[in-house]
Formats: sequence, structure tokens, C-alpha cells
Amino acid sequence: MLIPAISPTADEALALALVQAIDNKTKPLGSLGRLEALAKQIGLIQRTTQPALTEPALLVFAGDHGIVAEGVSAYPQEVTWQMVENFLAGGAAINVLARQNGCALQVIDAGVNHDFGTRPGLVDRKIARGTRNFAHEPAMTAEECALSLERGMALVRDLPGNVVGFGEMGIGNTTAAAALMHKLANMPLAECVGAGTGLPPEGVQRKQAVLESATRTHAQVSEPLAVLATFGGFEIAMMAGAMLQAAALRKVLLIDGFIVTSALLVAARLQPAILDYCVFAHCSDEQGHRRMLDYLGAQPLLQLGLRLGEGTGSALALPLLHAAVNFLDQMATFGSAQVSTQSA
Amino acid sequence: MLIPAISPTADEALALALVQAIDNKTKPLGSLGRLEALAKQIGLIQRTTQPALTEPALLVFAGDHGIVAEGVSAYPQEVTWQMVENFLAGGAAINVLARQNGCALQVIDAGVNHDFGTRPGLVDRKIARGTRNFAHEPAMTAEECALSLERGMALVRDLPGNVVGFGEMGIGNTTAAAALMHKLANMPLAECVGAGTGLPPEGVQRKQAVLESATRTHAQVSEPLAVLATFGGFEIAMMAGAMLQAAALRKVLLIDGFIVTSALLVAARLQPAILDYCVFAHCSDEQGHRRMLDYLGAQPLLQLGLRLGEGTGSALALPLLHAAVNFLDQMATFGSAQVSTQSA
Repeated sequence: MLIPAISPTADEALALALVQAIDNKTKPLGSLGRLEALAKQIGLIQRTTQPALTEPALLVFAGDHGIVAEGVSAYPQEVTWQMVENFLAGGAAINVLARQNGCALQVIDAGVNHDFGTRPGLVDRKIARGTRNFAHEPAMTAEECALSLERGMALVRDLPGNVVGFGEMGIGNTTAAAALMHKLANMPLAECVGAGTGLPPEGVQRKQAVLESATRTHAQVSEPLAVLATFGGFEIAMMAGAMLQAAALRKVLLIDGFIVTSALLVAARLQPAILDYCVFAHCSDEQGHRRMLDYLGAQPLLQLGLRLGEGTGSALALPLLHAAVNFLDQMATFGSAQVSTQSA
Repeated sequence: MLIPAISPTADEALALALVQAIDNKTKPLGSLGRLEALAKQIGLIQRTTQPALTEPALLVFAGDHGIVAEGVSAYPQEVTWQMVENFLAGGAAINVLARQNGCALQVIDAGVNHDFGTRPGLVDRKIARGTRNFAHEPAMTAEECALSLERGMALVRDLPGNVVGFGEMGIGNTTAAAALMHKLANMPLAECVGAGTGLPPEGVQRKQAVLESATRTHAQVSEPLAVLATFGGFEIAMMAGAMLQAAALRKVLLIDGFIVTSALLVAARLQPAILDYCVFAHCSDEQGHRRMLDYLGAQPLLQLGLRLGEGTGSALALPLLHAAVNFLDQMATFGSAQVSTQSA
């Protein structure tokens, strides 16, 4: 499998030109805070002092996890396909937020344990009906993992716009994400395991015990793709592929919460320059996400106590990306507006 | 002058109904974080389990400050009227962000030191051409202060919608706001004084020295309206009036940064229940704003390192208000979507 090449966005001359354009706008220097950094980042990604956002799309990858047999989730596995139905009917949180913020929504069956048949609005890229239970065996084969990545890449090659947001649905996937974090960011499991959709404290303990045992079972696994295949899921692997392709095509990547960031952990190990293309939408309330973001040196835009997944943070952050691009495009300069600059 | 009556929004039965409606949505309990609290607050303000936002308006009040004669700002006073011209021409940050987020913008001359003549788009409520220099005498008379409040109230009575955002422009107004904070929130000046539009450290020291001297001169002043009249500004007083009227009419108030919050300090001393109607858009980078918010028990939605004023934080937070109302209105319930609820 070919991992696409990703170039760093660094460009000193362009960065300087962007900073000058930003500083000439009619506002005190630096007073738009994070929006200024965002405008500069998007300019560097698009290689222009006049960045623009076109046709933002949100990809929501769904998949099931064999590990749920160990009792690691507050919800039964059937909720994965039921929520996919909810996405298709337009009734989930991500439908509401994507609609509000003018973001096209694509729902991808990466490996849900359910037969949807042919359904308008559902992109069928199913690898299998859920991963295997990694308490006993690898979640997927190396071939399934490669196929997931390739299907994710292909999806992004067909997208028209220059902004891709990521989201996911999969009962059990905070368990898979915690395993990826533990292995790829070298953090103790206790810092990686959280309440997910709402486990009580004894449920979190059980989840941690399951992960302790499973990571002992697979202790020898360390290469990023092997880690991904071992702990899964199909939605995480497909997302990692989509991310790599999106950055290779110099799109802006909108990174959501704990699970989406775990897919990025894999992608960033394969192509570290991908981080130049990432906007971190928010810091989730899922314990572990803050540390994951710190590990990546990421500064999230929003801190709203979200822990829903689906890409809801990505959708909510989209207006801030528009704001960054719009102020750079539309604000007057001190010269054009004949506003006096700082005294002395 | 009659300060309008403001009722607390507390209503146990309605609060319970709102929480039930929120909890029935297809998402883990509490997983929309701050958006859930926001939906509940707006429901209580509007006395309904089906809140809706109509015709949001942003009021930007501009005024000049006699205290600038003491050298407290990084920019010359003429920037106030120049920026008002920029607002009218549509080239300022607030124009861009209000436009993007579907928010009507009203620019009010509360007391700018400039003769604009009759100008389309400018609401002329000028009290005087700037306040007096409070280093030597009260910024305004009691009559001017009352007139400012009344004009602010009247403005809001004419607004069609149920959301009012607040913003301001006035060279020198962080100095006035710091004085209000010191007097009304009983905090040492060192915690109230910041860099404003970008003072260097020695400028901040000078600003603090000016305020120390001025607050000694006016040491006997303690009643909120007397404090407001003494330290001014016309834009702050008019805003406080507009806030009181907006809450009395059960509108949602979107509170911006340091100066807007200083106007709220006055309003909240006159009518503490006003706080039930306030959504705090963001925490500004102006030192002092965080402590002002803490004093009010306020939790800001955004932390983006903004320190621009104009209502830019209010405009940026507006999509989050829409998100709160929209998820409550549009999301499916576990029952309607036939999604299984939590196990056990």
C-alpha cells in the first residue's frame, strides 16, 4: 500500500506576507487571537495570501468493534447501526450541526455489524461486519487494515472541496482509541481510558482491566500500522487513510474528538507533516483527549465539554474557520480605511 | 429615571421539562456539554421547551473619553470616529463577523468627539462630544448618565428580535472599564488594568498610576450610578441601559469582552436578575476580564485570545446559540428514532 506523500506547509516568505496582511487590517495587532493563527495556517496550506474555503464536507465513518463482547460500553452494539439510520434520517446531532453550518455530510459504513442493503445517502465501504475481539486476536488482518486505508484515501480523492471534517460512530471505539493512544503515544492506560458514552466508575475500571490484559496479549506490536490492525477499528483505519489523502491534496483537516484524534495519531506516525494541515476543533470531555492533544502539540479551538463524537466538534468549529478566512479577505486595512495607526 | 423590573428566570417545572427534552435526544446524557446548558437557559428565558432565536441584532456603542488626555491608550482619540466610519463602510472586523453569522448590526454614536452629520446607518444618540477627564472631574453629570441609560433602553424597545449582542468602540474605554471594575467588583486596580489595544508595560504602569490618582480623587463615590457617571463613558452607560431593557423584555443578552462586561457590572448592581439573561460569549485576553467573569459567576463560551472589542466575541458566539436551539428543536429522540438506550 502506498502512503501518499505530504509536504510541510512551512514557507517563510509566504508566512511573512500573511502576517503583514493580517497586521494591516484595522484592529490592534494580534487582537483577533486564534483567528489570526488560523488565517495564517490556512493561507500556508493553500499557498496563498488570499485563502478561501470551498464546499466543506464532513465524513462520518461508522464501524463496529469485537471488543464490545468484553462489556466495555454503556450502550449495546446495535446502537451503531441504529445511529447510522438516525444519520440517514437526519435526526442526529451531527445532521443538525452540519446543516446549520453549511457542511455537506457523508456517512460511510466502514464496517458496521448490520446489513443496510443499498441505501441512498449511505456510502458502503464495509470491510466486514465489525472487527474481531482484540482481547483474543487482532481486530483485523493486515489486508483488512490496508483496504480500510485505501478506501479512505479513495473517498477523499472524490471530494470537491478544500476542507474535510472528520467524525465517527462506533460503539466500543473509545476502547480501541485508548489502546492506540497507549501504544502510539506511550502513555499509561490509566491516562487513556475514559467513560466513553457514559460508563460508571466501575465500568471504566473494567474497561481498563480489559485493555491491560489485551495490551499484554499484543505486547510485541509496535509499528503504527500493526497497532492499528491489532486494535482496530475499520472506521478509525478508514479515517486515517482519508486524513493522509486530504493532507496530500492540501486540504484543511478538521479534527474532532478522542477517536478522530486517535486516527490522526496513526496518520501522524506515518507522515508527521500531516499536522500542518490539521485544525483541532475542540477538546473533548473524554478523559485522555486533552493529553492526546498535548502529545500532538495541538491547541483546540473550542472547549465546550462535548463528548458526543459524530464530528459534532468539527461542525461547530467550522464557523471559526470561515471567520478566519473572511476577516483576512474582507476587512479594510489601516490605509484603505484611513484609520490612524498606533501612536509612538 | 425608572430602571425596568427584571424577573429571575427560575422555574423548576419548566427546567425539569427542558432537561427531560434534552436527555431524550439521541446522544449520551450530557454529551453536548455547554450547548445543553445553553438550550436550557434560553428555554427558561423564553419560558418554553421550544425556544427559537429571531432576528439577532448586535448593538455597537461608540463614545470618546476625556481620560485619554492622560496618555492611557496606544492609539490617538481620532481612531474612535475613524473606526465608526469603518463600521459604516463595512470594513471592520465586526462587519465581517456579523455579516457571516446573520446578525443585524446597529452602530450608535453615544458620544463620539466628531461631527458625523446625518449619516445613513449611524444611529445618532450623542450625549456630548466625549466625556470629561475623570482625572480631574466626573466624566459626566448625573443627568447625562441618566439620559445615556434612557436612550439605551429606548433603542432596545425598538428592536424586533429576541437576541441582542453588545459591542463597543471608544479609545480609552478599557481605562473607564477598569475603574468600574475596581469600584463595583472591589478589586485592586492592579488586577483591573491591562494593555487595552496594546500598551507596552510602561504604558500599563502609567495607566494604572492615572487610575490610582483618579480613584483617590473620587474615593467617596460608591453607588453604581454615581460610579458610572464619575468614570464614564457614554457608550458604557448607554449599553447598561440597553442591557436592562433587553432583559426586562426577556431577550437573550450576548455579552462580549472587558468593556461590555463592565457595563453589565453596573446593570447587575441595579438588577441582579439580569445575569439570568446573559450568555457570556468569550473570555478576552484583556487582563482583568477573566476575573470580572469570575466575579459574576460567568462561564464564557469561547476562549480564543480575542481582545478587539466591537462585539466580535458576541458575533463569533452566535452560531453556538443557534446550535443549542437547533439541537433541541431538530434532533430525534431515542423513541422517535428507535435507538436503544443505555444498557443496565
